Amino acid sequence: MSYLTHLECSRCGQQYPSEEPHALCPCGGPLLARYDLAGLATYWRPADLAGRPWNMWRYRELLPVREEVNIVSLGEGGTPLIRATRLQRELGVGELLVKDEGLNPTGSFKARGAAAGVSRCLELGLGELAMPTAGNAGSAWAAYATRAGLKIHIAMPADTPRVIQTECQAYGAEVITVDGLISDAGQFIGARCREMGWFDVATLKEPYRIEGKKTMGLEVLEELGWQVPDVIVYPTGGGVGLIGMWKAFDEVESIGWIGTQRPRLVAVQAEGCAPIVRAYQAGETVSCFFQDAWTVAAGLRVPKALGDFLVLRAIRETGGTALAVSDEQILAAQRRLAVTEGIFASPEGAAALAAVEKLVESGWIAGEQRVVIYNTGSGLKYTDSLVPAGGTRV
Amino acid sequence: MSYLTHLECSRCGQQYPSEEPHALCPCGGPLLARYDLAGLATYWRPADLAGRPWNMWRYRELLPVREEVNIVSLGEGGTPLIRATRLQRELGVGELLVKDEGLNPTGSFKARGAAAGVSRCLELGLGELAMPTAGNAGSAWAAYATRAGLKIHIAMPADTPRVIQTECQAYGAEVITVDGLISDAGQFIGARCREMGWFDVATLKEPYRIEGKKTMGLEVLEELGWQVPDVIVYPTGGGVGLIGMWKAFDEVESIGWIGTQRPRLVAVQAEGCAPIVRAYQAGETVSCFFQDAWTVAAGLRVPKALGDFLVLRAIRETGGTALAVSDEQILAAQRRLAVTEGIFASPEGAAALAAVEKLVESGWIAGEQRVVIYNTGSGLKYTDSLVPAGGTRV
Repeated sequence: MSYLTHLECSRCGQQYPSEEPHALCPCGGPLLARYDLAGLATYWRPADLAGRPWNMWRYRELLPVREEVNIVSLGEGGTPLIRATRLQRELGVGELLVKDEGLNPTGSFKARGAAAGVSRCLELGLGELAMPTAGNAGSAWAAYATRAGLKIHIAMPADTPRVIQTECQAYGAEVITVDGLISDAGQFIGARCREMGWFDVATLKEPYRIEGKKTMGLEVLEELGWQVPDVIVYPTGGGVGLIGMWKAFDEVESIGWIGTQRPRLVAVQAEGCAPIVRAYQAGETVSCFFQDAWTVAAGLRVPKALGDFLVLRAIRETGGTALAVSDEQILAAQRRLAVTEGIFASPEGAAALAAVEKLVESGWIAGEQRVVIYNTGSGLKYTDSLVPAGGTRV
Repeated sequence: MSYLTHLECSRCGQQYPSEEPHALCPCGGPLLARYDLAGLATYWRPADLAGRPWNMWRYRELLPVREEVNIVSLGEGGTPLIRATRLQRELGVGELLVKDEGLNPTGSFKARGAAAGVSRCLELGLGELAMPTAGNAGSAWAAYATRAGLKIHIAMPADTPRVIQTECQAYGAEVITVDGLISDAGQFIGARCREMGWFDVATLKEPYRIEGKKTMGLEVLEELGWQVPDVIVYPTGGGVGLIGMWKAFDEVESIGWIGTQRPRLVAVQAEGCAPIVRAYQAGETVSCFFQDAWTVAAGLRVPKALGDFLVLRAIRETGGTALAVSDEQILAAQRRLAVTEGIFASPEGAAALAAVEKLVESGWIAGEQRVVIYNTGSGLKYTDSLVPAGGTRV
């Protein structure tokens, strides 16, 4: 089933066995799952996917779960790739496609990461989990941990959208709110994990979440007949979705399903929290902690991402870029996507559209380009931050 | 593509051409779409579906849209059928499956109806639509009408969940709130349509919405290898989902994909609005207007359904039943589904689980039965009605 062979540090290259729990490498680098790609290449073909259910587990050879019985699933993945015909005309983009991750369980792409991560926690015999979150990852892990029968403790900023807090509690997770950001929540969880023996499943400290997220990239390739799009625009908080897709593209090149061409990867952040954009513009290989981070796009409020160096490497190696958009531009793009295409995106997803607007204006996107933007979550979780337009009362 | 031949009154049998707009039959009966099933039977096989995308349009021969260019789609359908292993053990049910319609665009099964209905409005050249709604249908029609470039006016009770009101406004629909129920909203819209020349797309007045909804039944059959489940438990407001599935089962029997066996169809209502349950218990063929309707399950607050006689016929002909559950039972079932299976259902979907609990207790469901419950929408739209369990603040 799975062709997983081992874990490898993304910083120093040190290898670790995959069949025991691991967190970060002692050097501080996140561990990445590695597969027997040479073995896979000899027999696995795109046509083999044909009869499989349209969810992320259709790529199970490239996912880390060994035994089918350990798969914790709520039907994640298989989200639609929607053509934004009116918008592409208005913007003058060759082709604009929206991968609508809001149609996942728990309403965001985080379901993919949680499905992979929780399944592996179950497979490796972990009992009690804990994590910090900026929002939707908490919902997803609460749902999947509950489904797996595992306890989970989730710390989040006290001003995380109320719908998300309520949702986590509905699943029976312990919800801890902190006066601060995800970084403060992370410190709190880290200390509690050491004290209580919980397993810390924070982004990239836990090595399998990224494996679920990479299927966002595999699906788009499959939907496009294993042709890579020209540009992928991705809202970047922790950046794991982007790193995951970049990793997946290398993997499917290794097994011969695509060539050496890559989409230009674009990391979009909010002006109120743009550590990776700053580092990119300054030519740095890592980011600095972004002080006083605030943006309406809760999921982008990550002041320092553990995988920042990988995001920066991914966008540079693919000829991509990083740019920030304002909350005003985000909310305008959210309205535009809703009233033009009927897609009620999360502010994070709207940020990707706002970025396309800017990149077209600057000429960075020009001509007959095929552009894919990711709406990472449903707008339904953020209705508190929308001012109702005021209906008629009769 | 479509094998649609004509429309037929569900009450008097009168036939109408399908390629012009129609509302109710002058006799007051809703019109139903009819297909050339004999023609279809000669060549259409389940295996023909294999290569098609996993959304509701895979059944396009049994859907009313003539030209592919008129399909207004946001990726509706293809929702997961989730095994509720823990709950089936706890309840002592042979097999309990949850069809999770919350993973549709706009977060509910209403997306299926809106996709079919709006596509046909577009195909028939209608320009401006209007409808009453108890909640989620408004969200769905707002999104799809917007996507089609059609104007839409939506009237709903003033106490419809706030998230839903905000969502409709986000799509740019005109939202009209009324002090009253969907029936009052319906009267308001009816009058405005006569005055303004808008097309009234209220449930069953518009004949194609039901065609989209019936795919909920087709998908379950396909997922079960064209075996019918023993029992289908369906939360029933207007009841069109249930009527649609019943209709779809007859259609696929006519083309030879299933035999004469039918699932026992169960209509679940809330104690605070149970007109069909009352009629069923009284042995009536139609329901009476339910005074002072109130329930936390907004979608079930339909005091008098146009298709009541069809719901009653469907449950009687299949050996099903109708029963009401209390709001307390609904909220308890919602918690139970979330903390046991990781599924955060709408109160309507939770009502279906509450009904299963009662039917097992009464012995109506016994032994090795395969039971499918429909979670008609995402719990995210109803977080206002959930009292947060109160997390820890640090």
